[in-house]
Amino acid sequence: MKTLVSSPAREVVIADGQPTVLIGERLNPAGKKSLIEALKKQDAEFIRQEARAQVAAGADILDINVGVFGLDEAALLPEIVKIVTATTDVPLCLDSHNAAALEAALKICPGHPLVNSVTGEEGSLSRVLPLVKEHDCPVVALVQDGNGLPGSAAQRVAVAAKIIERAEKAGIPREKIIVDPLAGAVGADPGAVQVALETIRRLKTDFGVNITLGASNVSFGMPERGLINSVFISMAIAAGATCLIVDVARVRQTILAADLLLGYDKHARRFISDFRKRTLPGTLPKQPDH
Amino acid sequence: MKTLVSSPAREVVIADGQPTVLIGERLNPAGKKSLIEALKKQDAEFIRQEARAQVAAGADILDINVGVFGLDEAALLPEIVKIVTATTDVPLCLDSHNAAALEAALKICPGHPLVNSVTGEEGSLSRVLPLVKEHDCPVVALVQDGNGLPGSAAQRVAVAAKIIERAEKAGIPREKIIVDPLAGAVGADPGAVQVALETIRRLKTDFGVNITLGASNVSFGMPERGLINSVFISMAIAAGATCLIVDVARVRQTILAADLLLGYDKHARRFISDFRKRTLPGTLPKQPDH
Repeated sequence: MKTLVSSPAREVVIADGQPTVLIGERLNPAGKKSLIEALKKQDAEFIRQEARAQVAAGADILDINVGVFGLDEAALLPEIVKIVTATTDVPLCLDSHNAAALEAALKICPGHPLVNSVTGEEGSLSRVLPLVKEHDCPVVALVQDGNGLPGSAAQRVAVAAKIIERAEKAGIPREKIIVDPLAGAVGADPGAVQVALETIRRLKTDFGVNITLGASNVSFGMPERGLINSVFISMAIAAGATCLIVDVARVRQTILAADLLLGYDKHARRFISDFRKRTLPGTLPKQPDH
Repeated sequence: MKTLVSSPAREVVIADGQPTVLIGERLNPAGKKSLIEALKKQDAEFIRQEARAQVAAGADILDINVGVFGLDEAALLPEIVKIVTATTDVPLCLDSHNAAALEAALKICPGHPLVNSVTGEEGSLSRVLPLVKEHDCPVVALVQDGNGLPGSAAQRVAVAAKIIERAEKAGIPREKIIVDPLAGAVGADPGAVQVALETIRRLKTDFGVNITLGASNVSFGMPERGLINSVFISMAIAAGATCLIVDVARVRQTILAADLLLGYDKHARRFISDFRKRTLPGTLPKQPDH
């Protein structure tokens, strides 16, 4: 199944068998004091630098989230979207649980950005799906409902099924829906990753939809978060995730290696090209003796 | 399913839901000039150092392979086994396609070492399975037969089924068989890893057997082999591999992270303990701002 996310200048294809699409996570203030300060001060240059740095690191799409306690998301989200679209031409992912903020941002965001997100809750379905339909956008479906995040893969798949059904009734085809199976922190719940991977496998089998994941939460509270995140990303891509919300500069090499291993990188072109960019021409190291 | 591999001093348990068992690959001369020289010269000290270093790095089992052109495996394998068993008390994996070499090594190797390997070829089945039965050992089953390595997962599962059937007829129970789905180099065959992962998933569903893999071949001919191998290992463990033949010092952290993520490391004890050993007490780094 093929999901398109676009800006006026670029179209990003999310699909099975294609290179994994990278959604830059750094314009999300969760846990980032410096970004919280920048949003409070409306420091446009800080935002521009984060946007440019992520694109330079290989981000295909930029996630934009302004959820900071005390700030008016519906007023701020379109402002930040304007700053980012004036800085870079990659498509955006409008990230808010606030339907008014999504509505305001969709009004001014050109192209067909990814709406992140709708849930299985009635209030979300009834407010977000009409916006998605009106602006002809793809949307991330979070597998939670009024009762929170279900514990089992079967329950999460059931929530996804409900969202897909409601979207199709609203005239939004299945290929516009990217399901997020929600991987929690393994330090808090040792079963969190197994459930997320099982949810991905079932969603691929039952619905064939595209799958996204925030890949940095699983390591919360643990040392060596970079290593843990990279291992998780490898597992998620092998299970069927087709786009990931990540710190691109930190994990792009891992993702290129995963795509190479799974046959998503024809003739290893992306992997080798990235490797050559990071090393001097003519200095390919010898195969180690091992 | 539980497979036991033992020396007189230690018993290693290979099972689903348990930490991944690490089989040290460095006493295998394929591609290692210094080990080839050491085997030709019968340099016992070199062998002892490689054995000790792997155990210090966290190897649970040591693979012993002496397949060098021009050397007499049946004479050399027992000699090297004697050197290693006099040096360390971890169980061994006797690695040869030569049944006479396996027979000679099994005669002098104490405990119940892992026999590596039997294939679906008639000559291998009829010579190796009686040795495995006689010495009450676990055995690695390679999914290849007289026609070489099958291209599809279904064909590889069929070879495994044939070996399991023949073993059970010979009185060797299924829990003594560890199947190797044979992951080839992705540089030569872009589908190699997908087929290996699919073979693992089917073998787990159909037979529930333990799975091993040599995890260093997939990256052959590519740059950044360490990265590629680590990503592959993460995928293989998530798919169901329960023991891996690896360069332990290079990939142990990746495997500990994979076990942590999949809930095989209760209370994250092994991951945290390894982390603490590698860092000074009292210097746990701050969570990065990301």
